[in-house]
Amino acid sequence: MPERLLVVNYRLFTPGPVEVSEEVLEEHGKRFPYHRDRSFAEVVGRVTEDLKKILFTDARIFFFTSSGTGGMEAALVNLFSEGDEVLVTSIGKFGQRWKELADTFRLKVTYLPFEFGQSVDPAMVDDALRANPLIKAVLSTFTETSTGAKNDVKTMGEIVGRHDKIFVLDSIAGLIADELRMDAWNVDVAIGGSQKAIGAPPGLAAVVINDRAWKLAENSTLPKYYFNMQIAEKFRQKGFTPWTPAITVMMSLATTIKKFKERGIENVWADHAHWASFFREKAGTMGFSFLPRNPSNALSAIKMPDGVESTPIIAEIKEKEGILFANGQAELKGKLIRFGHMGHANEQDTLTALRVLEHHALPKIKEAQ
Amino acid sequence: MPERLLVVNYRLFTPGPVEVSEEVLEEHGKRFPYHRDRSFAEVVGRVTEDLKKILFTDARIFFFTSSGTGGMEAALVNLFSEGDEVLVTSIGKFGQRWKELADTFRLKVTYLPFEFGQSVDPAMVDDALRANPLIKAVLSTFTETSTGAKNDVKTMGEIVGRHDKIFVLDSIAGLIADELRMDAWNVDVAIGGSQKAIGAPPGLAAVVINDRAWKLAENSTLPKYYFNMQIAEKFRQKGFTPWTPAITVMMSLATTIKKFKERGIENVWADHAHWASFFREKAGTMGFSFLPRNPSNALSAIKMPDGVESTPIIAEIKEKEGILFANGQAELKGKLIRFGHMGHANEQDTLTALRVLEHHALPKIKEAQ
Repeated sequence: MPERLLVVNYRLFTPGPVEVSEEVLEEHGKRFPYHRDRSFAEVVGRVTEDLKKILFTDARIFFFTSSGTGGMEAALVNLFSEGDEVLVTSIGKFGQRWKELADTFRLKVTYLPFEFGQSVDPAMVDDALRANPLIKAVLSTFTETSTGAKNDVKTMGEIVGRHDKIFVLDSIAGLIADELRMDAWNVDVAIGGSQKAIGAPPGLAAVVINDRAWKLAENSTLPKYYFNMQIAEKFRQKGFTPWTPAITVMMSLATTIKKFKERGIENVWADHAHWASFFREKAGTMGFSFLPRNPSNALSAIKMPDGVESTPIIAEIKEKEGILFANGQAELKGKLIRFGHMGHANEQDTLTALRVLEHHALPKIKEAQ
Repeated sequence: MPERLLVVNYRLFTPGPVEVSEEVLEEHGKRFPYHRDRSFAEVVGRVTEDLKKILFTDARIFFFTSSGTGGMEAALVNLFSEGDEVLVTSIGKFGQRWKELADTFRLKVTYLPFEFGQSVDPAMVDDALRANPLIKAVLSTFTETSTGAKNDVKTMGEIVGRHDKIFVLDSIAGLIADELRMDAWNVDVAIGGSQKAIGAPPGLAAVVINDRAWKLAENSTLPKYYFNMQIAEKFRQKGFTPWTPAITVMMSLATTIKKFKERGIENVWADHAHWASFFREKAGTMGFSFLPRNPSNALSAIKMPDGVESTPIIAEIKEKEGILFANGQAELKGKLIRFGHMGHANEQDTLTALRVLEHHALPKIKEAQ
């Protein structure tokens, strides 16, 4: 056996991609079926049915070989036509991404940004929809990975539904970790990614789209090919994807989703809620503080006090402990340490994170105070 | 260890995705690095340098998490603006895909289709470019997977270069198997896929783009986001991709490309040429005939005589021998048995393919004659 190209001797405590379990990695590294063989369609069918149960929906599901951003683009280019009016809410980098996507594809955007760490004020969504009846859809974020904040999707869904608009939700980071009930909460389109709490390697995005939203999709005139759902629909009905998919990621997804189904999704949410709360309570007692006011159970974002940079702390923990936390992104770089509860919603990893942060981060924070 | 979801007990003799070696699968199933860590940038850097050597180019390389079709779309939406004139050649399904893509994104297409099994007549490319000086670029296919035919890219490149146009080549299937020298042959843009002769699982496309083509890319106004190379360029310079990539596929790619580099790309071409010729000579002697006139070394496409359907033969071989050959696609379904030399350019697999076809396919063909 030749030497490995790169020895990865650190663990991912990042909020996606997550550290993948041995069992899922083993499936990932096995011989895989042909993407036009019935055996593969059976796997896709199983993942689809399990995902629908997890999301409490009977909507159709498309899989795209892409990152989550590809799934967001797929939703957008399939629902809309040039000049369509949309309301975009943003509470961080991924909300901004909706705006960038909508601007790129020449939609007319009503933009509702909130400060980093805040969540969307649902009343302002109500106001914006009342102010402009031409708005067709609301594009929003479930869990904002850049800040760790969660939106009140249930209340937002009531409002969007009352206005009879389409509700499109980037639920990439929150999926599995935070409670989400698509049909009951009026979420028409949800986007997920394989590498987040769902616990597979990166490579696949899922776009879940109900019949109300599908009507928009049937009339959309934005140009699309790779992400075209009308092409994909013909293949979906046979359990396939139009283009060669990331087969090994789908196999991993089937393995990990099977486990969540067996555990029961309510229990999976509860696990994340328990260990996220436990982590924040203990860390808070130690002297850490957190950015978001309404935090997601998918991740925790520790805020650095003025004068403390997170970058060298994260580097030190990686070097000394073999554990990689995530930094803040863009304007938040150096200002955050982010820890994903995705895949780490268990006692051992939570205690490890606390121990490591207490040892390497806390002294610097205390010093600055 | 829980039972596997699906036991894949057949081998892929399909022309992509290919059967992946044990060594590469092992890499694929290992813990992987974070996509924003320097360790990952090192892997991307190594794959990039190795690919450039293999393609005899110093062009820049972008990796997109997508199928090969995503790579084709990336090339197209980054090079052109609405109404731009392009010449599209087609010798099968993947040539048609260029036309569908170009039509979708509202380019003006001069379409030069050839019969299935034929290759492009380079003189007709010359004529078409002479007839319409407004054409900016030629979109063509290196190895047409649907028919097994190879184009004379060297001669086409001379012509395209003489007319000072941009030459965009879908080289997804041919890469590694057929000789290709990008810079010397005036190929400005080439697209590759991880799951073909290069021998990794599906999930990544590579778009190789030289400075001449990059000038077009800097002026393109077609809307794009996920595939936007101007966004990707900023990340590329640091060895990253803008969105979370299929990390495990990149790790596999690094492993397989390292092997090709060690073997020497000229030897890799020679291996494919040798075993593809050997296969076709032996099979021809047995009584099989082939669709393409100028075949690629990446695959062989056996033509069924009238009255013989390939579909049940392929199913029988899968069931009885545990080996999956590929059928024809679309209008060629039931009319072909396709065998990929990609990853099978060795004595054992070639002899196995011959034995199996002799036993299961030949009697039916003889019967019909």
